[in-house]
Formats: sequence, C-alpha cells, structure tokens
Amino acid sequence: MSKERKKICIVLTARGNYAKMKSVISALDATNQCELTILVGGSVVLDRYGKLLDDPNVDPLVIQHKIHFLVEGETPLTMAKSAGLAVSEFATAFENTKPDIILVIADRYESLAIAMAATYMNIAVAHVEGGEISGSIDESIRHAITKLAHLHFPATKDAAERIIRMGEEPDSVFCVGSTSIDVLADLDLSNLSAIHDYQKTHGVGPAIPLVSGKYLIVAQHPVTTEYEQNYRNVQEIASTISELQLPTIWLWPNMDAGSDGVSKAIRELRENMRPDHIHFFKSLPIELFGPLMKNAGCIVGNSSSGIREASFLGLPSVNVGSRQNGRERGENVIDVACEKRVIRQAISKQLEHGHYRPATIYGDGAAGTAIARTLLDAEITQQKTVTY
Amino acid sequence: MSKERKKICIVLTARGNYAKMKSVISALDATNQCELTILVGGSVVLDRYGKLLDDPNVDPLVIQHKIHFLVEGETPLTMAKSAGLAVSEFATAFENTKPDIILVIADRYESLAIAMAATYMNIAVAHVEGGEISGSIDESIRHAITKLAHLHFPATKDAAERIIRMGEEPDSVFCVGSTSIDVLADLDLSNLSAIHDYQKTHGVGPAIPLVSGKYLIVAQHPVTTEYEQNYRNVQEIASTISELQLPTIWLWPNMDAGSDGVSKAIRELRENMRPDHIHFFKSLPIELFGPLMKNAGCIVGNSSSGIREASFLGLPSVNVGSRQNGRERGENVIDVACEKRVIRQAISKQLEHGHYRPATIYGDGAAGTAIARTLLDAEITQQKTVTY
Amino acid sequence: MSKERKKICIVLTARGNYAKMKSVISALDATNQCELTILVGGSVVLDRYGKLLDDPNVDPLVIQHKIHFLVEGETPLTMAKSAGLAVSEFATAFENTKPDIILVIADRYESLAIAMAATYMNIAVAHVEGGEISGSIDESIRHAITKLAHLHFPATKDAAERIIRMGEEPDSVFCVGSTSIDVLADLDLSNLSAIHDYQKTHGVGPAIPLVSGKYLIVAQHPVTTEYEQNYRNVQEIASTISELQLPTIWLWPNMDAGSDGVSKAIRELRENMRPDHIHFFKSLPIELFGPLMKNAGCIVGNSSSGIREASFLGLPSVNVGSRQNGRERGENVIDVACEKRVIRQAISKQLEHGHYRPATIYGDGAAGTAIARTLLDAEITQQKTVTY
Amino acid sequence: MSKERKKICIVLTARGNYAKMKSVISALDATNQCELTILVGGSVVLDRYGKLLDDPNVDPLVIQHKIHFLVEGETPLTMAKSAGLAVSEFATAFENTKPDIILVIADRYESLAIAMAATYMNIAVAHVEGGEISGSIDESIRHAITKLAHLHFPATKDAAERIIRMGEEPDSVFCVGSTSIDVLADLDLSNLSAIHDYQKTHGVGPAIPLVSGKYLIVAQHPVTTEYEQNYRNVQEIASTISELQLPTIWLWPNMDAGSDGVSKAIRELRENMRPDHIHFFKSLPIELFGPLMKNAGCIVGNSSSGIREASFLGLPSVNVGSRQNGRERGENVIDVACEKRVIRQAISKQLEHGHYRPATIYGDGAAGTAIARTLLDAEITQQKTVTY
Repeated sequence: MSKERKKICIVLTARGNYAKMKSVISALDATNQCELTILVGGSVVLDRYGKLLDDPNVDPLVIQHKIHFLVEGETPLTMAKSAGLAVSEFATAFENTKPDIILVIADRYESLAIAMAATYMNIAVAHVEGGEISGSIDESIRHAITKLAHLHFPATKDAAERIIRMGEEPDSVFCVGSTSIDVLADLDLSNLSAIHDYQKTHGVGPAIPLVSGKYLIVAQHPVTTEYEQNYRNVQEIASTISELQLPTIWLWPNMDAGSDGVSKAIRELRENMRPDHIHFFKSLPIELFGPLMKNAGCIVGNSSSGIREASFLGLPSVNVGSRQNGRERGENVIDVACEKRVIRQAISKQLEHGHYRPATIYGDGAAGTAIARTLLDAEITQQKTVTY
Repeated sequence: MSKERKKICIVLTARGNYAKMKSVISALDATNQCELTILVGGSVVLDRYGKLLDDPNVDPLVIQHKIHFLVEGETPLTMAKSAGLAVSEFATAFENTKPDIILVIADRYESLAIAMAATYMNIAVAHVEGGEISGSIDESIRHAITKLAHLHFPATKDAAERIIRMGEEPDSVFCVGSTSIDVLADLDLSNLSAIHDYQKTHGVGPAIPLVSGKYLIVAQHPVTTEYEQNYRNVQEIASTISELQLPTIWLWPNMDAGSDGVSKAIRELRENMRPDHIHFFKSLPIELFGPLMKNAGCIVGNSSSGIREASFLGLPSVNVGSRQNGRERGENVIDVACEKRVIRQAISKQLEHGHYRPATIYGDGAAGTAIARTLLDAEITQQKTVTY
Repeated sequence: MSKERKKICIVLTARGNYAKMKSVISALDATNQCELTILVGGSVVLDRYGKLLDDPNVDPLVIQHKIHFLVEGETPLTMAKSAGLAVSEFATAFENTKPDIILVIADRYESLAIAMAATYMNIAVAHVEGGEISGSIDESIRHAITKLAHLHFPATKDAAERIIRMGEEPDSVFCVGSTSIDVLADLDLSNLSAIHDYQKTHGVGPAIPLVSGKYLIVAQHPVTTEYEQNYRNVQEIASTISELQLPTIWLWPNMDAGSDGVSKAIRELRENMRPDHIHFFKSLPIELFGPLMKNAGCIVGNSSSGIREASFLGLPSVNVGSRQNGRERGENVIDVACEKRVIRQAISKQLEHGHYRPATIYGDGAAGTAIARTLLDAEITQQKTVTY
Repeated sequence: MSKERKKICIVLTARGNYAKMKSVISALDATNQCELTILVGGSVVLDRYGKLLDDPNVDPLVIQHKIHFLVEGETPLTMAKSAGLAVSEFATAFENTKPDIILVIADRYESLAIAMAATYMNIAVAHVEGGEISGSIDESIRHAITKLAHLHFPATKDAAERIIRMGEEPDSVFCVGSTSIDVLADLDLSNLSAIHDYQKTHGVGPAIPLVSGKYLIVAQHPVTTEYEQNYRNVQEIASTISELQLPTIWLWPNMDAGSDGVSKAIRELRENMRPDHIHFFKSLPIELFGPLMKNAGCIVGNSSSGIREASFLGLPSVNVGSRQNGRERGENVIDVACEKRVIRQAISKQLEHGHYRPATIYGDGAAGTAIARTLLDAEITQQKTVTY
C-alpha cells in the first residue's frame, strides 16, 4: 500500500488528561494503522504536582517531547503568559513531529493555545468533550476551540446538538460519550486495597480505613474568574469536613490561576488542625481513584468527577459552587452554594441515601474505540465554514 | 462624581486597522467619558511596511505601548510563534494599562491571540467585524474570537444574524456597519492631487497620470493556507496588468505567512519588466486611498477593499481567487479564478461598465459613533454562556 | 539646573537581593539626586517563596514593574528558558522605564540575562559583588557579567584585584565591601524576640527556644551542576541535625535547578521525623536573620551567609561541600565534605570554640553610601575595551 | 569499543558563519569519530537575507533544527528580545539533540545567548575567534562569551594572549588561526567567471565587467551603538563610489540593530541614482567572494573581511570608521573616518599601490583541522575558575 500512515498527535497537559486519553491511545495502538505522537507538558511533567509519567499505573508511553510552558505566578497575567509560551513551544513540537491531526481536550486555557498553534500550522484539530456549558470562563475557551476544530467528540447528546447549532458541520460531530467512562468501565472497581499499596510505596501516611460507603472524597478546584474567593471557599469545605470526622480523601487542586489560594487554605488546614482523618493526595491515577469513587459515601467539591464519573458509578455527589453550572447531571448530584451549613446538610442527605442507579448520560465505555476509528477514517479539509 | 471612567483599549496591529478604528477613536475622544488606551504592534511599528505612526494623515495618537511580536520567517511555524509572543507581550501591556475592555478587529491571527490574552486576564473583549464568512482559515479565527467576545459589532445584517445563531446573546450583538465606511463617508473623495503631494514628499517615483475611470488599483494578498501558490497567483495578475498598460496603483501585501511569495513575484515584475505604468506603494492611508478608489476604473485582486469599500463607492471590482469567498457583495463585483485570461476579460468588462450605484450593505458612515456609545454604556459580565 | 537627573534602576530577583540593595536604595534616596527605578521579579514575587514585598521589615518601595520569568520545572532546560524569558521581559521593562544604568548582583543565572538585555539596549551595567571565585557554575556567570559591566563594586580586595586583572579599567573598579554588611552594621543585633513576634503573626509553629550560643542555623542550597546529588546532600545534613537535637532554624533553599531535590529531602525530614526542635522558614528578612546569626552557636550548610555575614559577626560556621570554594573566608569557617560524620565533628568543635573575633574582609558597613556616590558621579561610555 | 562518540554541535546563525565553520565541519566529518549536530537559525533561514541552505556552494549539511529567533524591528529592544528568544529556542534544540559541546563564533549578540543557554544546561562551550578587541559593543559580548567558554580557538597570537590574561587556563587556549582563511586557502582564486554563472542562475543583473585590479568591493555594516548614524555613513560611501564610476560589488549588511538605516541608504542609492556600475548582492558564498577579493582593486567599508581575509590575500583595504578598531591588521589596510573626501583619497592611494604581500597573522589555512582535533581530544570539566 502506497499511502503513508496518518500521524495522530495526542497532547497531555494536566494529570486528568491521561485518564481521558487512555482508551483512545489503546484503541489507536491496537489498530496499528497510524503513527502516534504523544506530547506531554504543563503540570504533567512537574515534580510538585506528582509526575504523571513515573506512575506505575500509567501504561508506558512513547513520549516525543516534554514541553515546559508554565510561567510561575498563578495570576491572570502568568496564565496568559503561560498560554503564550504554550503556543510557541507546541509550535516547535509540531514542527518537529509533523502531525496530521492533534487531539485536544475540553476547556483548559492551554488547550485553546495548542489548538491555535495547530490551526496556524495547518494541522487539523480534533476536540474531545466540546459543546458543554459550565458557567465559568472555561466555557468560552471550550467554544472557541470548537470553532477551530475539524472533528468534534462531545460526551453527551446535548453537547453534540449545541456544537451543531454553533454552525459546525453535523458530519464532523461524533457523540461518543466520555472517554473517562471507558477507563472506569474497564476497571475492577471492587479493589480498594490498591490505595494502601500505593500509600506504602509512596510513603504517604498511615493506611486509610476504607469501609464502603463510610468515607468521603473531596476535590475543590480554584474558580478562575473568582480567583480571590478560592481561599475562602476551601475554608468553608475544610471546616465542614473537619467537623464530620469521617475518613476523607482530599485531592489537591490543578494549577490554574487561583490555585495558590486553594493550596494555602489546604496547607493551613493540615498544619493547624492536623486532621488525622483526612488524607491528602497530589493526584491519583484513575486506576486507584475509580475504586475509591465506586465505594465512597459521597464526593464533595467542584470537580467534574462529581458530575461525570459519579453519574456512571451512581456515586452520591455534593457539587459546590458555580464551577459545574450548566453541565448535564444525573439524579445523584445535589448542588449547593459554598457555605458550610448547606454543604454539611447535603453530605448528610447523600450519606443517608446511599448509591444511585448508574446512568450513561456521559457514556457507556466505548468512546475511545469510536474516536480512534473516526480519526483514522476522517478526510479533513483544513478550511472550515459555518453551516449557515 | 464617584465612578471611575471606563478604560477602553484599542489595538492596532496592521496598517488597515487604523482606518477601521479612526472613527471609533474620534467618537470616544469626543465623549470625554472614558480613558482611551491605544496599543500598537506588529507591522504597524515596522519600517519595512511603512510605519503607520509617522504618517501625517494619521491623527496624533497617544500610544501607550509599542509591541513587537513578529518572529521573522513568514512560515506557518513563525506565524504560530508570533501569535504566542503576541499573547505574552499584550498580556504585559494589559497588566501595565489595566483596561476594562479591549477592541479587536476581524480575523487576523494576532487578533485571536490578543483576545485570548484579554480573556485570561479577565478583560472584556469587543469584536469588530465578526460573523462574516470568507472561505479561508481567517474564518475559523474570526468565529473563535466571537466565542471569546462579550460585545459584537458586525458590519452586516447577515454577519449579525450568524453571530446570534452561533449562540451569542442577541443583546450583545450590534449591527453597526463597517467603520471603514465611516472614514470614506467623511472624506472629500474628489481630491486626486493629494497622492501627488505624497509622492513628492516620499520621493516615490514620477507623478501618476490619474484620469477618472482610466486607471487601475491592484491589491493581492497571500492566501494563508495555499501559501506556495502565492507566487504563481501574483505572476498571473502581474502579467495581465503588464499587458493592459494602464496606469496602475499596486499595493504591497500584508505580512501573513506567504507574503514572501507575493513579494518575490512583485519584485521580479519590477526588476525584470521595469513597468513604468505601475506605481507601487507599501501602504496608503485611507485619506489618499479613498479618493483613488472613488475615481479608479477598476480594483483588482483579493483585498477586502474590493468588496467593502468598493461597494459603498460603486467602484467596479474584479475579485480574484478564494480569499473573499462567502463575503456579502454588491453588484459591482465580478469574481474570477486566478487565471490571466479571465482576469483580463473581467477587467475589460468592468472598465466598459463604469461605476455602479453605491450600496450600504457594509454601512452608512455612522458605525464609529454607534460603537463608542455601546462601549461606554455596556455593563459586561465576564462569564458568558451560549444561549441554547 | 538644566541637566536631567540620572535614572538608576535596581533589580531584585531573589529574596537575598533586598538585603544586598537596602543600603544602596537608602543612600540613593537620601541624595535626592537621581530617579530611582525598582524592578522586582522571579521568586521575589511568588507566594510559595515568601513574598518579599509583603514583608513589614521591607521599607516601602516604589516598584515600577513586577516581572515574571520563571518557567516551572527546575531543570537545566527550564533554567535556560527562564533566563531567555528574563532577557525578554526585562527588555520590556527597560523600554518602559528607560534607565541610564542598572545595578545587578553577583552571580545568579538571571543576573547575566538582565545584564545582557541592558547591554543590547545600550544601558550601562553596574555590578555588585563581582570578581569572586566560588567553585561552581556561578563563577562563570559572575565573570561574564563582569565583562559586560561598566562599573564594578566588588566586596573584597582580592575580588577587586581579580576584576582588574581580567582587563577591566582600574578606574571602574570600586572596592566598597559587601552591602549585606551595611544592613548588619545598622541593626540592633541583640534583639532575639522579633522572631517570636514574626512566628506569631505568620502562624508558623511554637516559639523557638533561643538561648545565645545554644542553637543552630542551617541553610543548604542546591549545587547547580551536581543537581542530582542535592537530595543526598540534604539527607546527610538532616540526619546530623536530627541527632544533635539542638534548637535549629532551617531555611528553605532558593529555587535554582536542583531545588526540587533539596525540597524533597526537607519535606521527608519533616514528615517522617517530625523533628520538633527544627523550625523551618521559607525565608527571613535580614532584620530577623541578623540577630539570629549574631547569637547562634553555629551556622551550617553552603549558604554564602556562612562565609560573609558570619565573618563580620564572628559566628562559627561549618561550610559544607564545594559551593563556596574559592571565596575568601575568616578564621570562623571550618570547611567539610558533605558527610554526616565530619559535619557533626565540625559542629561540635565550633560549639565548643564559641564566637570568633569579627573581621571586615567583607566590608565595614559603608558600602551602600559608596556605591550610591559612585553611581551618581560616574560618567559612563557604553563601549568598553580590555586594558591590554 | 565501549565509549560513546562525542556529540559536537555547530551553530550557524549568520551567513558569514558558514564560511567560518566549513573547514571545521569537513575536518570533523573526515574523522568519523564524533556525532555532528548542525543547528541553523536567524538570518541563515530567512528568505530576505539569501537563504544559506539553498546555496549550491554550500556542502549538503544534515541540519537537525532550524531555529527562528529574530523578532522583527531592528531596534535595541528587538535585539534584546531576539536574544531572549534565542536562549529559549536553542535550549529546546539542545534538549532534543543533547550535545556534549557546542561551538559558537566570535561576537554576535545571539552567540552570547546561545553560550548562556548551553552553560545553564551543563553543555561545554567552545569559542572560535575570541580574545579580539574591536572598539564596539561586540567586544563586550566576545569577552563575556570567553568567560563562559571551556575551549578557546583564537585566530591570532594577540588574541590568545589576551584570553589567557583574562584568567582562562592556558591549556584551554588554542591559537589556531582563522577558519575563514582555511576556505580561502582551499579555493582556486583565479576563477572570476563563477560570479557570472551565479548572476545568470539568480537573475541578478547584467554580467559585471571584472578586470583584475580594476573593480571595488564594498561592505558596510551598521555600527550597533551608533545606530542612527548608519544611514549617514552609507551615504558618504555611496556618494564616493558613485563618483568613482568603477565596477563595484556591494554587499548588503547583516541584520543587526541599525541595518534598517543602512538598507534605506542603499535603496535610495539604487532608486535615485540607478548606478549601473554598482552590483548589489544580498550575500555571496566564500567560493565566489574569495576569487572576487583576490582580484579586486580595493575593498571598502567596515567588514572584518577587509581586515582578515584581505590580509591573507594582500588585498588593498580601506577600513571606514570605528567598527574594526583594535583588530590586528596587516600593512594592506588604510584606516579612515567616514567622510567622503578621505575615503576617496584612500581608495585612490590603494588602487595606485596595488596588491600587498600576503600575511598570515590571521592564519595559514589549517585552523579547521586543529579545532576538530582538539574538540575530539579535549576532556572538559564543566566548572571553571579563573587562574588567579
């Protein structure tokens, strides 16, 4: 056969990205019909966020380039400067690896930067998890990426419909479900002991007493445009969790502008209260996090996990604040303002209720295969135009 | 009065930008109700493109910062790197000047970079000339800016409708017409002698013999994604114009990726043929270019001037190639492929026909005032969401 | 008087910089004969290193620009990228502030970047603490800055002589002593209670029991070119200190490449051993650190404080490893390899010996005044040439 | 054999660099004992400066990376910003290619940037043509590179002695002569017809009438720190050359800050005077330029060619202005101020005198071999210290 194999490039810039791309990578690898390039950058390559690549749960990846684009500061100014650097550094990586198409994820500020670099270099853009609404600046970023993308892989029907209404060619929109669900669907979710092994090998504290339904998970990210409130928000949650005295797994935030505020509040919590029932993790691979979620009593905070993965698992979720506004959700979610009293009430109610029926609004576990197939088959014209 | 005046920032990065912002600047200045910041960058501050700011036809502007972001090379890679640098450098300028809102124009690659920097720094974005379709990569850029923008000032009804259909709040869309038309509407268009004065003071060749209806204007820009064809395209036009032997004003291209190809073809034309009837200009201010257009026999090439300004002036236009695809046009435009034979036929037909009735599809001359008023009155929330 | 006042620019990029520039800033301010610009950047503006500017011991400064140039990663690659960004960002700041002369300090990697930016923009460079030898890559950086600098303010006679031998004009070399000594000379060094107030207001642990001569200070920085050893080095020291069980003040490292290694070892020490007798500080202003040093039993590690300030104070010092190789030192210093046994022996010996006679090899407290006078009086020609 | 081959990296950033590195590259290639990496960047990869790599006289090189670092503007600010970008972009290239040692040339502003990037990444630096004095800001740059370099390959004895006096280890200084002379020594210098072939294939004007001793060469570069004078300087020379009416080969300047001034004056000369006896070239490979120099009547301007190559060839040289101050020179050079009268007198005197005896102060043609041998054999310790 004379045709060269398509060059597909996957970009991982935040620890959550790996779980979202794992099933796509496996599916592409399995076909042996393309040349796969993996670029990693941002927090994924930084020590202080828990390096993704050293994680034994991560399949060995052939990484073409590690890209540093984070300008220290965690302010709006440095977020913009980091984005600028991302454009420039990914452009170099694209020049060196010459992909035909790149896959970007959702709504991170660097994802738009990367899509922009690709667009200007005449590389096609495929967008995973576009079309969602979320009540924060991320939404603008997500839709701007949609307008640069040639292929769309929304996670839900609503999102797919929205992308089409925005003027994207219906034939370029593939409603495949969420790839995070693929990974969950693939796991043995009953295995709770893995986290204890992980704690031992990483030397992070005493074993967490994990009785199904009797522990909490907390993940609270900064809210970019409300940046100064982040500190106060975490304090409300910290105070709630402190009082509940239940075993709790608390995940550090990602490193958007504002994460200093979140980190500071978490550090104060640790240093002042020394709360032995709370176990902090910089990050956890989905292989560990999946079983933990499956068996938790409730997930609290503003992470998308509380909306997406929790719905697939039927995990009771208390969604705090505005960050997930507009996202489709299952019956397992209670939305509350970021105030101690209402957070506490909602947690109690969820613990009483126990698990919900699993829902597939965010996918049924086959998204990766569908995306891989489409990437391989698609014939893409660089120039786009709105449909109206 | 206790309220601080709104800080409005206007960004000029290409020579055409000034004509597009002139009436807005005047109107804002006249109100005395805001603090106006003007940032200039890109080709506007470079010698070899004819510095905008030294031009006597340009009103004295109080420039806050001159911003260099162009990485030499004029390839897709350097376009991406320039965009990355633009993000970073404009972020610094925004940090230093703290605008409440910035105004970006249309669809240039750096306009998206600037809108991105503003978005990440929680500065509102107003977008002039969004919503249009154009059959090139610019269209993707334009729509991506739309998804970041909080206020929209499309030039035509079709564009306004398109923006709303893309999910923008109808109340944020103001169909004001094109600001370039404002400047035209304000000029004494019968004054053809000004160009001769300009030639004298700039030492650029002998006086052009300008008889109304008996000379041509050519402006051919590179077509970003067809980058290697640019050289050939200009050769087709050059050859046509050479044979016609009519007095011709030829404008150098802007400096997108591909302009090296255009420049090379123009230089060869000059050096090999020494065509005395063709007069080359790096750029001309609208004050000179307006009367030249009003009185020309025909405008040829792929500049938007041949679509917009020409329609308001009733100037016969031969639009070459795909660059203006999808733009609304008046009856004054003949679209042709970039082949000598058909270009020549179309020019002959237009010269025979003579001027058309002026049309106001691109505005009636009051866009600047409308934009200024809206910018001053608007109360903007940084977070946006699609309307559906 | 017709002559404009000279514009002098001081750059602070690391927390130690402020103590080194404090007396110069005061002296320049006092003359009222120049326009003083202060630029801050790097770790000085970052939360996680203890923001300099929020420190109540820092005189209120009029900061013209805050400059972010640190690319996250703390590897040799990101050190280089940070240096590149520093060149670009300081160039912008110089363009905006137009200094006649800038003052850079010693041997940090960004200091060379800043001197380079100034050189290329035809701004004169004055160099504080050049001419020293130090047995690490810093020495190359320091001498390269010397070759770009127009005025030299070495701290010792040896250093001054070395600068002249390198071919610098003797008239441009002013042996003024170390400016850090100025600050020490100005302080009430008997005041040990200030640190307790500081602990209270910063919420950092219980009051340290400070009996003169009965506590230790530790400051161990990464050694740039031995980068992977840093972790092991700190472990040796940590183990020694752990066993001694004396009250100890331990300062976090600065953030050169390799500081991740140092930080990791310190974190492990804290988390695994929970050593109550060790008190960690991100940084301490000289106003607190001076009295602590004056009254300590011994300072341990590889900080220059153990060589310079310790000599002026007569503080017994155990200098560990190669970082300070080649620096002039007083009789108060014992040099040891980074091995637990010898470190421990040396500390014991020093504690037995007690304080030494103060020495002025690093200055007598009037460096700032001398530098200020010279900066104001100097007439500088941008072009330099070697003297031979 | 168990030992890995040394990785040697050669950096070419200006068109003159190739001629300086050609004999080194050949000699290294011939040994087959190292892995050779070639990085090209700056003007070498730009169309408008005559792309080096498309030149048929350039041996086919295996280029690892093309690096874009030039920020448009040609002002001191953009020179600094270009240097900053060079640091960052070369750092990426070093990360990707992992050289053991890099070779930088002389005194260009980006050479210091590249040496800095290498230093921070623990890569050894070898410096060609250090130690010279030149009466401009380049001298500071050159000596700063010396202080970062581990191996020194000065072109003359004076330069070698100067490097040692600056405190460099005598064993690290190898006085090899100039590599440009190697290329000259290798050429058939009687072949004048090659330039006519070149003109034909490049379509640049009618054949130059070249009678030995009866034509001139002009090469005038901008003088960085006198930046606004550049325009006037070229006018003086242009006017002189215009009057002499001798066949003249005029080379365009390199693109330091100030080259806009030079270019403008050259363009005016061309457009206003249309001097048929002057033939302009963007650049000429040494293979063409060598024979042209060998047979010219006189070389005029401030290029180092008029000092170095001219001395080896015995070519009469009129050195204009301060740019080459302090460089060793043979008896073939007359130094003049940049004034028409004295330039003209000096040219006449030189044309009368005719060729001088060749001198070897700048080398005897074996520099490349010596450098290659030393690079292969050297055992380098990253840390340096001054010798006193």
